[in-house]
Amino acid sequence: MAFKYPGGRIYRTNETNQSVRPFQAHYGNRGMTLEEDLNATNEYYREQGIAVIHKKPTPIQIVRVDYPKRSAAVIKEAYFKQASTTDYNGVYRGKYIDFEAKETKNKTSFPLKNFHEHQIHHMEQVMRHGGICFVILRFTTLNEVYLLDAHHLIAYWQKQQAGGRKSIPKRDIEQHGHYIALGYQPRIDYISVVEKVYFSH
Amino acid sequence: MAFKYPGGRIYRTNETNQSVRPFQAHYGNRGMTLEEDLNATNEYYREQGIAVIHKKPTPIQIVRVDYPKRSAAVIKEAYFKQASTTDYNGVYRGKYIDFEAKETKNKTSFPLKNFHEHQIHHMEQVMRHGGICFVILRFTTLNEVYLLDAHHLIAYWQKQQAGGRKSIPKRDIEQHGHYIALGYQPRIDYISVVEKVYFSH
Repeated sequence: MAFKYPGGRIYRTNETNQSVRPFQAHYGNRGMTLEEDLNATNEYYREQGIAVIHKKPTPIQIVRVDYPKRSAAVIKEAYFKQASTTDYNGVYRGKYIDFEAKETKNKTSFPLKNFHEHQIHHMEQVMRHGGICFVILRFTTLNEVYLLDAHHLIAYWQKQQAGGRKSIPKRDIEQHGHYIALGYQPRIDYISVVEKVYFSH
Repeated sequence: MAFKYPGGRIYRTNETNQSVRPFQAHYGNRGMTLEEDLNATNEYYREQGIAVIHKKPTPIQIVRVDYPKRSAAVIKEAYFKQASTTDYNGVYRGKYIDFEAKETKNKTSFPLKNFHEHQIHHMEQVMRHGGICFVILRFTTLNEVYLLDAHHLIAYWQKQQAGGRKSIPKRDIEQHGHYIALGYQPRIDYISVVEKVYFSH
């Protein structure tokens, strides 16, 4: 949902408002953000009883709230905060599922600057506690989406910290990650990949 | 963290800001909200490598954002949204943990109006997928805290829908739930109860 405000800039909220933009209009993923596609996918999973996974709300630091008479409280001053965790989590077959989703316009590599230290630290913690943790990476220009287990991402992150390259080569993502087929419903069927990668032993 | 704004009303944010109110000052739980106690408890669990559980950010519908030159984006108009899930989730011993926490000043029963239909529906879904789901209930006046498995809450909720009572008697919470000992660190040690109730078979 996009808002244009007096300054002329468009602000796109992180919460998809399905009632404003009907689903049918999105067929073919034209212009949909990765987040919108994943929200629709998660909604499908919940409706079909496949998994219960939600995007966490965007963290906001609230400074000032007005309480007008006879109407809802209005937040008048607030700021975006850095997320301390990944954006998505939930349950599939009793197991804890946790992931971050990012997209790039690059065609040959995925820049590590899309992730923050807090998130990497969170992923390490989740893995230590036996959770299933990964990233969903979209190459927007190519319209290709991959699931990459967090331990690969963390390995690249650590190499970068030691002076290594600032991105993951796409060929490495193809090799260590898993291609996710795109469809109409679900749009990004990452759970079928999770099933294959983490549950088929 | 409390803000007083010109209208004279105090707004208490949902995100505890540890840097503003130092931890030491809270000893004895005097005046701490259940949320603040649980945030401190979860921080302790993460630091000690016991579990990775976070409170989700408060869901906000953002309407207008200003982008001043040379400073951070400011949210100028936003509204609180109804949460579609419970407030807390994470991972313990590989399993998905999900709960809601509420407090009451009542002494003999816990009012069901503290929960929303969305949250009850979410709890049902989580249980169907094998997640561990419960509520943490605090009787503020008595300073007693209980863990009650979600299936008990849902049973009372359904009875209420069918015209039954609008609260859970405290004696039923004592019988079906589990008393959580209060301490200094962790303040509300619910994970030791989770271990006993869900993992000791």
